[in-house]
Amino acid sequence: MLPLQIQPESHIPLYVQLRDQLRALVHSGELRSGDRIPASRELAVQLGVHRTTVANAYAELESEGLIQGHVGRGTFICGGTPARQFTPLPRQNGNGGVRWETLFADERGEEALSRISPDIPADSIAFVTARPSDDFFPVEELRRCANAVVASAGREILQLGVTDGYAPLKKVILEMLREEGIAARNEQLLITNGCQQSLDLLCKAFLRPGDTVLLENPSYPGAIAIFGSARVRCVGIPVEANAEKLGYAGLDVNVLESVLMQNRVKLLLVTPDFHNPTGTTLPIAERRRLLELAARYQVPIIEDRIYARLRVRGTPVPSLKALDRHGLVIQIDSFSKVAFPGLRVGWCVGPENVMERLRLVKQATDLHTDQLSQATLAEFVRRGHLDRHMARMKKVYGARLEALEKALEQHMPEGTSWTRVDGGMAVWVTLPPGFDAGELLIHVRERGVLFIPGRYFFIQNPQLNTLRLGFAGLDEKQIARGIQTLGALIESELQKKRRGARRVDAGHVALV
Amino acid sequence: MLPLQIQPESHIPLYVQLRDQLRALVHSGELRSGDRIPASRELAVQLGVHRTTVANAYAELESEGLIQGHVGRGTFICGGTPARQFTPLPRQNGNGGVRWETLFADERGEEALSRISPDIPADSIAFVTARPSDDFFPVEELRRCANAVVASAGREILQLGVTDGYAPLKKVILEMLREEGIAARNEQLLITNGCQQSLDLLCKAFLRPGDTVLLENPSYPGAIAIFGSARVRCVGIPVEANAEKLGYAGLDVNVLESVLMQNRVKLLLVTPDFHNPTGTTLPIAERRRLLELAARYQVPIIEDRIYARLRVRGTPVPSLKALDRHGLVIQIDSFSKVAFPGLRVGWCVGPENVMERLRLVKQATDLHTDQLSQATLAEFVRRGHLDRHMARMKKVYGARLEALEKALEQHMPEGTSWTRVDGGMAVWVTLPPGFDAGELLIHVRERGVLFIPGRYFFIQNPQLNTLRLGFAGLDEKQIARGIQTLGALIESELQKKRRGARRVDAGHVALV
Repeated sequence: MLPLQIQPESHIPLYVQLRDQLRALVHSGELRSGDRIPASRELAVQLGVHRTTVANAYAELESEGLIQGHVGRGTFICGGTPARQFTPLPRQNGNGGVRWETLFADERGEEALSRISPDIPADSIAFVTARPSDDFFPVEELRRCANAVVASAGREILQLGVTDGYAPLKKVILEMLREEGIAARNEQLLITNGCQQSLDLLCKAFLRPGDTVLLENPSYPGAIAIFGSARVRCVGIPVEANAEKLGYAGLDVNVLESVLMQNRVKLLLVTPDFHNPTGTTLPIAERRRLLELAARYQVPIIEDRIYARLRVRGTPVPSLKALDRHGLVIQIDSFSKVAFPGLRVGWCVGPENVMERLRLVKQATDLHTDQLSQATLAEFVRRGHLDRHMARMKKVYGARLEALEKALEQHMPEGTSWTRVDGGMAVWVTLPPGFDAGELLIHVRERGVLFIPGRYFFIQNPQLNTLRLGFAGLDEKQIARGIQTLGALIESELQKKRRGARRVDAGHVALV
Repeated sequence: MLPLQIQPESHIPLYVQLRDQLRALVHSGELRSGDRIPASRELAVQLGVHRTTVANAYAELESEGLIQGHVGRGTFICGGTPARQFTPLPRQNGNGGVRWETLFADERGEEALSRISPDIPADSIAFVTARPSDDFFPVEELRRCANAVVASAGREILQLGVTDGYAPLKKVILEMLREEGIAARNEQLLITNGCQQSLDLLCKAFLRPGDTVLLENPSYPGAIAIFGSARVRCVGIPVEANAEKLGYAGLDVNVLESVLMQNRVKLLLVTPDFHNPTGTTLPIAERRRLLELAARYQVPIIEDRIYARLRVRGTPVPSLKALDRHGLVIQIDSFSKVAFPGLRVGWCVGPENVMERLRLVKQATDLHTDQLSQATLAEFVRRGHLDRHMARMKKVYGARLEALEKALEQHMPEGTSWTRVDGGMAVWVTLPPGFDAGELLIHVRERGVLFIPGRYFFIQNPQLNTLRLGFAGLDEKQIARGIQTLGALIESELQKKRRGARRVDAGHVALV
């Protein structure tokens, strides 16, 4: 079976998805010259798509010289890129310009992120974001910090900096890490533009097309976008939302073990604290087991810790990096969730030779991270503003989380469940079987409520009856009203179902 | 002949360079299963390396299953990556940790940039940088701008922004472009973290391993680093430093034409104004010819305009983008050279559908550019500070350039030539034939003077007798003293040569 993943809900035509994935398999060497590929009818059945979809993809690949069909024998891979010689390309369009589409490298998932950034109409109750509430930004304190650092070190800040990071910021971050049980040296810390960039740099440093990466399933779309566009093979390890099944909610470590046993895996990305989108936190026993597995199979772990500091109740669990005895964990973190996402500053801590390599990659990517924000944030931390701001926000988010839980208890029909989270910014809801959250969204949006359907977070096997509720950006009243609206709508849909009524929604076909 | 480029001066062992380049050729499809590769002895002669270098590279590739030797028949490519199955890897080292080197993707030139960032001893006269002089930074004006924007729009600036760029900054940049003859719409402009990132994004959007890109030769090492690490084929178009040969100094458009005729080229990167490292500016006739060629062969042009605003004399030449009638030019620019490199803000202007694609790539790379710096720079431009600062700096740099030219005239021995530049930050010097600037640097560094040997800027055919003199960061007195030292040393080396004396420099072997 070829490792093909067709996403019916994507904006990209199915045959384009298929064509590009097959091409990538040839470029990565997974398919080699002489390999036979399934007949279009056969592949269509396997993928659950129409046969013309496969036929169209094959036709394009054949015109590129990548595959060739032989009557009676089947279709075969012919080799890599076509021989390099000048053949005039038919890419000029009517008005003398360039058909740019033909020049782009294949899209491979960059759009994953834009799908979870919908337009939000004014006055709607939007459970869509996982970003901090700006009502409480300590703008005045930040202004004074910016002012102070430019006055005292402006010339240095404004001149070209080092790729490593601005020294005063590195100093305060190393202190923060020490308080969390991580004794890192300066050489083990690299400042980046945030977790998204850290993932991009790690991807560039470690991965080649065709390599295998393990992600949580569901997962953060930004990670799917990065790895997808790098043409690596993403395998999802299920995150169990129902605590009764495994004895805990979170990454299924048993599945992880069997996948590690059967695959040569290059990297494993996990978010053990307040995982986005499910909100689950991996218990300490499973963290230890995960570390043991990574050591046994010699697979580096990228630990995304971006939400970990936003615990509103319960006892903090030590990070994988703090528990790591084998030097296998690279931890990524940022100021985005605990302070200001508009300042693009994050960091990455790991073994010294990994950081050395990442520094070179970062230098070739954008030289270094903005120094005005690095210096301002260093001062913000140094003056104690970050600690005070976090303490305040934990109270705010704690109250919002409680309001959400209360409203869910009160308004959700039987058969609906949600994750019990102790922090972070989101709760994951599972609707009764048969529900399509995408369809529900169409109705609930008309009533001024928004959420993100769960399907956008899945790498494989999307669960259409799931959705993410981000609670950090809404106050308790909005939360109560929004959940009431949502609950009532689900209830009425359920009743329709019970009455055996077909869901009639002119012009809309459920994508099941 | 295989397109292999071994760099003897690199920190990477020669056999590693060779191994990784061969592997990349297989992955990119340039070498296919069944292809025969030269015998190690033969390839060693071709590349001018020792036979064991080639033998070592071959041995590693054979152990990876990528090539196979058959006695009497030769060595052949076996295919792409090895079949995916779990085989315990011999990568555990003595102390239980991971041998990270074995996990990294191949290095392919990221180090190109770090080579031109040497450690600069205090009190040396360093002609090494192409960065602005921070003696004249209007720090106080900048501080007031930062202060004002945080006070008036802090909440918006600190919250997550849009990938597109901060609206007030886009507005002032569109006005700047309009004054330069470029009528761009908002959708045609994308804010980035500077030109280095713009190149990274363009590379991701357009290029796949094995694609061909044309660069100037010599070229900006940051561009070599980006394209090299993306495993694309970089072909250098010569930049002629001697104005008498072609009737102008700059990119040889005749060679460009013949390369376009013989290759399927994906992108062309040029710096028509004050090219780094040669300082040359392409005349308008050659700009028109270049555009005509790009249109004929339907090859998009990336125009790097980072130095263009630093003209200190003569008449500005319209940019390629301003002359472009076919929508083929994507222009990249930044505040780094005209204002502050420590604030990582630049931009990219081009056809709308290209910008749409780049926005998606940028989002997946780092979400958006830092908003504190975007907002501060927008205010800095709006208040007229940028214009005033540039006017002042042109006077400063003009005086420095004149001092450099005067010193070169006075102190350089006959047979030495240099480019006549009208702006930018560097002059390119060609020493008499047979000189090795790398060797010269060893001597001149002992006398407290630094420059960058020209070889670090070449993609192909390095001219060892060239060097770059960056003049923007030194005052007139330093320039005069530095060039006097340099000239005297060259003169004494020349005399040694004339006397037929062997260059004896214990322990140092010229890399010719």
